[in-house]
Amino acid sequence: MTRTMTEHESELAPGEQAPAGVVAMATTDQEQLSELGASLRTALDGPYAEGRAAGRAELNPEDVLRDDGQSMAEARAWTFAKLQLLTDRGLANAGFPIDGKPADTAAAVIAFETLAHGDLSLTIKSGVQFGLWGGAVQNLGTAYHLTEWLPKIVSLELPGCFAMTEVGHGSDVQNLETTVSWDRSSKEFVIDSPRPTATKTYIGNAAVDGRMAAVFGQLVVSGTNHGIHVVMVPLRDADNNPLPGVNLGDNGHKGGLLGIDNGTISFDQVRVPREYLLNRYGGVSEDGEYVSAIASDNARFFTMLGTLVRGRVCVGASAGITARKALSIATRYAEQRRQFPAPGSEKGVLLMDYLSHQRKLLPAIATSYALGFAHNESVEMLVRVQEAEVRDDLRSRELEARAAALKVMHSRFANDTVQMCREACGGAGFISENGLTTLRRDVDVFATFEGDNTVLEQLVTKAQLLEYRQMWGDLDMLGTVQQAASMVGRTVMERSTGRVVIERLVSAAKRRTGEVPVRDRGWHAWMFEEREQHVVEGLANRMRAARKTRGQDAFDAYNALQDHMVYAARVHTERVVLDAFIVGVESCEDEATHAVLNRLCDLYALSRLEADRGWFLEHNRMSASRSKRVVRTVNELCSKLRPDALALIEGLGIPEKLLDSQMLRTD
Amino acid sequence: MTRTMTEHESELAPGEQAPAGVVAMATTDQEQLSELGASLRTALDGPYAEGRAAGRAELNPEDVLRDDGQSMAEARAWTFAKLQLLTDRGLANAGFPIDGKPADTAAAVIAFETLAHGDLSLTIKSGVQFGLWGGAVQNLGTAYHLTEWLPKIVSLELPGCFAMTEVGHGSDVQNLETTVSWDRSSKEFVIDSPRPTATKTYIGNAAVDGRMAAVFGQLVVSGTNHGIHVVMVPLRDADNNPLPGVNLGDNGHKGGLLGIDNGTISFDQVRVPREYLLNRYGGVSEDGEYVSAIASDNARFFTMLGTLVRGRVCVGASAGITARKALSIATRYAEQRRQFPAPGSEKGVLLMDYLSHQRKLLPAIATSYALGFAHNESVEMLVRVQEAEVRDDLRSRELEARAAALKVMHSRFANDTVQMCREACGGAGFISENGLTTLRRDVDVFATFEGDNTVLEQLVTKAQLLEYRQMWGDLDMLGTVQQAASMVGRTVMERSTGRVVIERLVSAAKRRTGEVPVRDRGWHAWMFEEREQHVVEGLANRMRAARKTRGQDAFDAYNALQDHMVYAARVHTERVVLDAFIVGVESCEDEATHAVLNRLCDLYALSRLEADRGWFLEHNRMSASRSKRVVRTVNELCSKLRPDALALIEGLGIPEKLLDSQMLRTD
Repeated sequence: MTRTMTEHESELAPGEQAPAGVVAMATTDQEQLSELGASLRTALDGPYAEGRAAGRAELNPEDVLRDDGQSMAEARAWTFAKLQLLTDRGLANAGFPIDGKPADTAAAVIAFETLAHGDLSLTIKSGVQFGLWGGAVQNLGTAYHLTEWLPKIVSLELPGCFAMTEVGHGSDVQNLETTVSWDRSSKEFVIDSPRPTATKTYIGNAAVDGRMAAVFGQLVVSGTNHGIHVVMVPLRDADNNPLPGVNLGDNGHKGGLLGIDNGTISFDQVRVPREYLLNRYGGVSEDGEYVSAIASDNARFFTMLGTLVRGRVCVGASAGITARKALSIATRYAEQRRQFPAPGSEKGVLLMDYLSHQRKLLPAIATSYALGFAHNESVEMLVRVQEAEVRDDLRSRELEARAAALKVMHSRFANDTVQMCREACGGAGFISENGLTTLRRDVDVFATFEGDNTVLEQLVTKAQLLEYRQMWGDLDMLGTVQQAASMVGRTVMERSTGRVVIERLVSAAKRRTGEVPVRDRGWHAWMFEEREQHVVEGLANRMRAARKTRGQDAFDAYNALQDHMVYAARVHTERVVLDAFIVGVESCEDEATHAVLNRLCDLYALSRLEADRGWFLEHNRMSASRSKRVVRTVNELCSKLRPDALALIEGLGIPEKLLDSQMLRTD
Repeated sequence: MTRTMTEHESELAPGEQAPAGVVAMATTDQEQLSELGASLRTALDGPYAEGRAAGRAELNPEDVLRDDGQSMAEARAWTFAKLQLLTDRGLANAGFPIDGKPADTAAAVIAFETLAHGDLSLTIKSGVQFGLWGGAVQNLGTAYHLTEWLPKIVSLELPGCFAMTEVGHGSDVQNLETTVSWDRSSKEFVIDSPRPTATKTYIGNAAVDGRMAAVFGQLVVSGTNHGIHVVMVPLRDADNNPLPGVNLGDNGHKGGLLGIDNGTISFDQVRVPREYLLNRYGGVSEDGEYVSAIASDNARFFTMLGTLVRGRVCVGASAGITARKALSIATRYAEQRRQFPAPGSEKGVLLMDYLSHQRKLLPAIATSYALGFAHNESVEMLVRVQEAEVRDDLRSRELEARAAALKVMHSRFANDTVQMCREACGGAGFISENGLTTLRRDVDVFATFEGDNTVLEQLVTKAQLLEYRQMWGDLDMLGTVQQAASMVGRTVMERSTGRVVIERLVSAAKRRTGEVPVRDRGWHAWMFEEREQHVVEGLANRMRAARKTRGQDAFDAYNALQDHMVYAARVHTERVVLDAFIVGVESCEDEATHAVLNRLCDLYALSRLEADRGWFLEHNRMSASRSKRVVRTVNELCSKLRPDALALIEGLGIPEKLLDSQMLRTD
């Protein structure tokens, strides 16, 4: 996929000379990139380079950049209007199986992440309509829903809500209180919110625009609760007035995403026809019998939720794009802003020349690349799972764990990075017209929506433990635990593909006589693996003991493991991301680009080892002198990468036209 | 100072019974606190308990809490109106030497921190008017300025600006470009902005309200530049129109502090009378001669800037108050919010009962206490320095370093903590009416205003190095360096007061045979000292080598030390804060309160040791097993402190009436 520009492809007129190292990219927006920047971008975009380049070129700043000074009402109106415009142009609603086309999962993901290059309210508004509302109908509905309803959703003729969260139950979806009861006599479903805590809240599109909602509730048929199901419920009439029995509220002003009209919904015995239940995994027959191909309520619940995994993949990715945008702004500013006198110069020292500044920006840039390669893998996993002829439970579970892991790391990284970039631009970073404060406000909620990060981390670890419990049987046999731990976190796909490269590198590092160089890639992979295995093995042993307790004691015993569980998720995620980066570097064929990616991968691996060196020292995986060398090497890598800072930013793929930063336009 | 309530003091009517452990506080707002909470609050308020309690009682929520949904124009108007109201009540403008009263430094600081319990725009607007503008006139002016101008500033009749920062020079104050030139013929000063980069920017009160400004510029007399001086320059006439030669701009929408009208100012040959120069440290005589008691331009510059240190003390403290407010909201929410089923209960598990939640909130609460005690020390240092008959250069420098160190730690802590609290409240935390998002937006800029944190950290370390270079002479003698390092960071005041307690504890820990318990206070103090000494000694040695280089090599050599310098500042600050906490615990006489403070101090010390255990392992200050025990002990301390969570929050001193969080009012 490596793109090398020939003179023939240049956009320059005959006789014109491009500045050294700068070639015109063959994108429709004529973006000028350095050769290295263009090549890095192609490598990072990976299998989706073409679609991403096209998507970026299609975005017009005036359509996707919002003025942060807008009031909430203005922001909401702007957001809906722009979503309609982008929908009409086909930029927001890609990939749906309508008009005889098959579903195109990758196209849907790429469309969503491309929108994240612009305003995040617009992105999330699109996500509510097409990802959540449209996604629920697409993934949980059957032919009737896809034919009758999906086209209106895809055209935005029918704006809708994804009504899952309730006042009393945020993370605990299984215990939602809304009821969906089958009325045998009228052959209808009755939707009801029995208590105030059953009120749906923080629901996008609920306060103003939503005409219908995919409502999550307990399905009760003839007195039997079959667990959580999803039903389409009309909310407002054609004049946007609430329908009888539907109570709608407004969550009002928020910390960010002002363009999203989050609101509350509660139901007072609202009736809908039998067909409105999204019944792919469970429904009620015409003669009033509950029917499902999945016998266990629990299995059905997780299967249904699992089909909605795309939202989590998309949310993580768009947080990642936001971090890239902040890094692009802060790095470009650091390349123009000077402060304090420079030796032998009147101009002062560029911020980017200060080690402390390099230490802030460059490891974050390296992590951005790492997460980008890992996200590409997720999209490939998602496509394989969602476009498979037959559902593969194991691969689905792997995908869900991966999506949760990356959503956590992406959103944590984005929050920290945008804040760091804001500060790295000093007072200018705090002025809205310079583009960072809106990113900061909008990306904040990514840490808790689409799954609270702390809850998701425990989900990731449970998936790890569950997997090898199923693979290796009884956890109580210590030998098995140890053996199992060596396989932990290896998904089916990993075992079959990229693992070969990594195992070769690790084996080579282990075989070396004498000390392994601190930049040896195999050593990095080895250390990340060792840590994960040890942490999960230790956790499994502690779990074994906790399983013998009951009642409050059991709660206390598991509760005492919570920080261990969260840590296990983190080290697992860092390992998965490193592996993806390694495979990404290895598949880059251009020599110069490969060398830079290699250095970036070193910086990702070593800055993570540095941050957690306490663990490696405690567990005798690093000596004190080696640990100090890791710290020094991070500094050295910063110096080595510094001359390429701008190219690295170009590689992250945010077009300059979308940076929306006044301070970069004035020098 | 320990307050123990007697039944006699209770506000309850005879026959009424207070709930167990709850007594009515004798504050004017009748706040109901638990006995432990009241006692903790008194201990933490320390020498300023009375003034702080009175200040909190005086604040009315309707005067100091702002609606986050306000537009920028509304926010600015609200802020000015409320500042006038508080000024009229004497709540914002305390401590000035007018009407025959002497300056009361502590009163000024307490007034400022008390305002931070409310809206931060209002707090900073007060800071701009009274701390910066009034402070410049008070501290840099002479009798004429104090008599003629200060009363109008203190009444808010004359709103003004502190015009230091320029477009081209944020942190680099010494190289500002604005000129203040003496015109020998007219006997006036001419203020000029020679280039666009000389434009003053981010200046509070400049966009709308400022009528006059304290302008920082290079004072040029008869062709000689005497360095930075400050001159009062009228900006607007009585109808608020800009005066001739004064160009005013608006920085517009910002990431937070929307109530502050930050703007730009540039001057085109604006003339002011000779008396307008704030000439305490340097001025021009009637016959046009430059006069100063301080011969060196450099020494004069640092002396003048040093007198403005109160602003930095106040900014740090108000960031600390903001963190306390966020912790109060998040902890109270965690005590009412339940999620996921609890064993043997229908109600679900309280968030506060989860270890992961305790791990988020309790170490932050402990750090809040630590910083509170450290801030009390700073105020005492400030009072001693600023109210001394004769200026004491050494103590002034110590105070400046301390103020910089605490401002950095306070503002970093506040940013991280408010964000953590927002996330700990899930979706509810993101809804503005719940009170966290406005704190998040407003406290953001504290990391870069009143000194960029990264620049300040280097200032702290330079002060440390300078101090012992002056005390011990030539840095090039290694023996001296090592000896000096053992004294590093000990200020005059430290050496004379609280050090006795700490040295006794450290000596006892060192004398112990066998392993020192992990909760031994002397061991904590010892470890923090060891780390600081080692880091500064290492830095001094590297500095010695760097001093032999010149030009670009010198820049490169010092630049390579930047992360070491920043780290030295951090470990110094953590040590200073621990010392203050230890002294605070020791001076608490109430047994039960002492026990809780002691535990909190353990948690502060051990959570910091945990976070930086890589260093202690690398440098053989902790064994691997001890390091693991530190981690376990942090968990144990969280469990032990968990039952006191609400009392700990009460101790932080934010009255419930000011929490402004809708979710706490509904259960």
